[in-house]
Amino acid sequence: MMRTRPLKVALLGCGVVGSEVARIMTTHADDLAARIGAPVELAGVAVRRPSKVREGIDPALVTTDATALVKRGDIDVVVEVIGGIEPARTLITTAFEYGASVVSANKALLAQDGAALHAAAEEHGEDLYYEAAVAGAIPLIRPLRESLAGDKINRVMGIVNGTTNFILDKMDSTGAGYQEALDEATALGYAEADPTADVEGFDAAAKAAILAGIAFHTRVRLDDVYREGMTEVTAADFASAKEMGCTIKLLAICERAADGGSVTARVHPAMIPLTHPLASVRGAYNAVFVESDAAGQLMFYGPGAGGAPTASAVLGDLVAVCRNRLSGATGPGESAYAALPVSPMGDVVTRYHISLDVADKPGVLAQVATVFAEHGVSIDTVRQQGKDGEASLVVVTHRASDASLSGTVEALRKLDTVRGVASIMRVEGE
Amino acid sequence: MMRTRPLKVALLGCGVVGSEVARIMTTHADDLAARIGAPVELAGVAVRRPSKVREGIDPALVTTDATALVKRGDIDVVVEVIGGIEPARTLITTAFEYGASVVSANKALLAQDGAALHAAAEEHGEDLYYEAAVAGAIPLIRPLRESLAGDKINRVMGIVNGTTNFILDKMDSTGAGYQEALDEATALGYAEADPTADVEGFDAAAKAAILAGIAFHTRVRLDDVYREGMTEVTAADFASAKEMGCTIKLLAICERAADGGSVTARVHPAMIPLTHPLASVRGAYNAVFVESDAAGQLMFYGPGAGGAPTASAVLGDLVAVCRNRLSGATGPGESAYAALPVSPMGDVVTRYHISLDVADKPGVLAQVATVFAEHGVSIDTVRQQGKDGEASLVVVTHRASDASLSGTVEALRKLDTVRGVASIMRVEGE
Repeated sequence: MMRTRPLKVALLGCGVVGSEVARIMTTHADDLAARIGAPVELAGVAVRRPSKVREGIDPALVTTDATALVKRGDIDVVVEVIGGIEPARTLITTAFEYGASVVSANKALLAQDGAALHAAAEEHGEDLYYEAAVAGAIPLIRPLRESLAGDKINRVMGIVNGTTNFILDKMDSTGAGYQEALDEATALGYAEADPTADVEGFDAAAKAAILAGIAFHTRVRLDDVYREGMTEVTAADFASAKEMGCTIKLLAICERAADGGSVTARVHPAMIPLTHPLASVRGAYNAVFVESDAAGQLMFYGPGAGGAPTASAVLGDLVAVCRNRLSGATGPGESAYAALPVSPMGDVVTRYHISLDVADKPGVLAQVATVFAEHGVSIDTVRQQGKDGEASLVVVTHRASDASLSGTVEALRKLDTVRGVASIMRVEGE
Repeated sequence: MMRTRPLKVALLGCGVVGSEVARIMTTHADDLAARIGAPVELAGVAVRRPSKVREGIDPALVTTDATALVKRGDIDVVVEVIGGIEPARTLITTAFEYGASVVSANKALLAQDGAALHAAAEEHGEDLYYEAAVAGAIPLIRPLRESLAGDKINRVMGIVNGTTNFILDKMDSTGAGYQEALDEATALGYAEADPTADVEGFDAAAKAAILAGIAFHTRVRLDDVYREGMTEVTAADFASAKEMGCTIKLLAICERAADGGSVTARVHPAMIPLTHPLASVRGAYNAVFVESDAAGQLMFYGPGAGGAPTASAVLGDLVAVCRNRLSGATGPGESAYAALPVSPMGDVVTRYHISLDVADKPGVLAQVATVFAEHGVSIDTVRQQGKDGEASLVVVTHRASDASLSGTVEALRKLDTVRGVASIMRVEGE
């Protein structure tokens, strides 16, 4: 059964992930060959700094000319682990034109240009696989796209950014503030020097766009994803969460509306009950909770980043693409037939936890409650605490639309007796 | 892109799972057609009791002659949800001979005859898929076989039987004894009238054989799996587990030996730390923990049984098989190239929790400790409690081979001062 002519792989990028891909391709060459049905050969490695010593990689394979490597014409699969939009996008489309399939770990690019890249792959009869783009080693794209292909997915809710989960877990377990926890994450290498992409939710939003698109068979662009970072989460928020039997996580949530006619995708910090499986996801781990009509509730858990875990996902895709190539078939392409409208954040329905600083005098609660009622937001619980002539009022609502809640908060800010809105946090997973 | 001639599906069995498969094929026909690229049509349903009213199924499709249905010659995919060895085995091989691919949920058959069935499928160029055979709705076969195809799996440890997890969870949370918890499981429909297959670990052992085979690219037969049921787990065992910060689960464990040269597969009750993700798997849920070289630790969680969840897995396979059929390819078949030897239980290395009833007199601990030392089993902790002239001695060992532990226990039983061995339980997940 074994074909002797090897399949040729071009590796674009040889950083943390790329070097692991190269290492495993070498050390596990026999296993990969047995599982694919033909040997795979590393035919070239495109890098920015050719002088850097790369253990285990033949220097003759290293080039700075990624374009020439992709255009060689004898490449079967291009593995793109450069990241970012350009030159990755052009290299991938060039790969398709020159007869190669592509395995990518590039969430930003897939979230922004997934539809165009899928179209290019299909035009040239090539595969585009990207399991590593979402939640690192956790098999998620394939289960959603294939295992649940006969089911109707209603909700995907997950912790898809390890950096922010590390920070929030640290704040939760030690009572540290955001800056202190971020500093520790940076010192330990969990956060980059510029943590913006993580802490402001850009990274998670890209993953949410990809997951929503696959789950709902609908194109969801990065711009469709509501995004709120977690830099304003405070130790006081965690204290409030604890009082409610909750913790705080940065969640990516993709939902089908109750009537099934539209979908939403969003990233923001939220309180979730300690009894929810996502609450116990610690450190830099990722986990994604999926709810579907027939399967019910599923959860996928594992390391969401790191060189070796991401390489595991890349290599799983590489094996699949190579098998497809040998059998002359391609795997499932983009599935966007449902083409559901993506609703704005205002249409999202969930619960809210609102902390207000108010004057400590009679009638304030009545005033505040009236504002909620006028906006159609039903209150579940209220807790009032006095402190030095001021008081804090914590309101937890029943389910209401984000638009109604925003209107409520705007009106609350105009009340003389409301000194300030200390925090607003959504409550999920109940 | 859409082909108009439908793919024809023969459904063998229309019980809890089969009726859900038929229902979803009808209610989600448009989605399935869009995802496959062609409509799928229920061409026939083989049942034992044709007179039973089956809502939503055209009575004209119902037949008692499963063989004739499979031999029709125009069937594309046979969905086998009868269970048991015969007639399922003959019907599946007949399906291949008559040009159909097969989706099966039959763990017993796959564990016993997987190799022969795969060979038959390959001989006729057909697919054999069986995601639903292990852990119901949880995508597990496909992630192991495809997502982790570029990685080296070292361990698969899971709760793969919902009935026993319900019973053990009940014992843990209420302090109930085995019989009381079993009675409740039966009353609630979680346990069958004859619970033997579940409580004696036969069901879990079949799943362990399937998982080990896929994880290690090695044929593992049902007979290769060490099996110990959970009928002898007592409330006292749970009390001991709690003192150690553990709970008790019936685990299926498939392991690669430390030297990589052999594998083991086993099912037995075991103590696991409360901090382990498997410890918090409640009720009838299933979860499987996977450890691999590159990906690290992954966990897959969800409903392990039930009509709709199992149907979700069956339909995911059905979509994949139909796609393969349209593209003229077949999916991954059996991968047993590694052909590693399966070692007996004696070679398994783990930790043990042993409760002994001993005479309450000086020198007993020294005697017992000597026996452990003579068999090369190192003791981690000992706890001695006196009660009315008798004493109980609880020993927790370091890692030792099962053979060494068995030898130790045999020798302990021969000591005059040891009145009895109250319980032996393995300790996992540390």
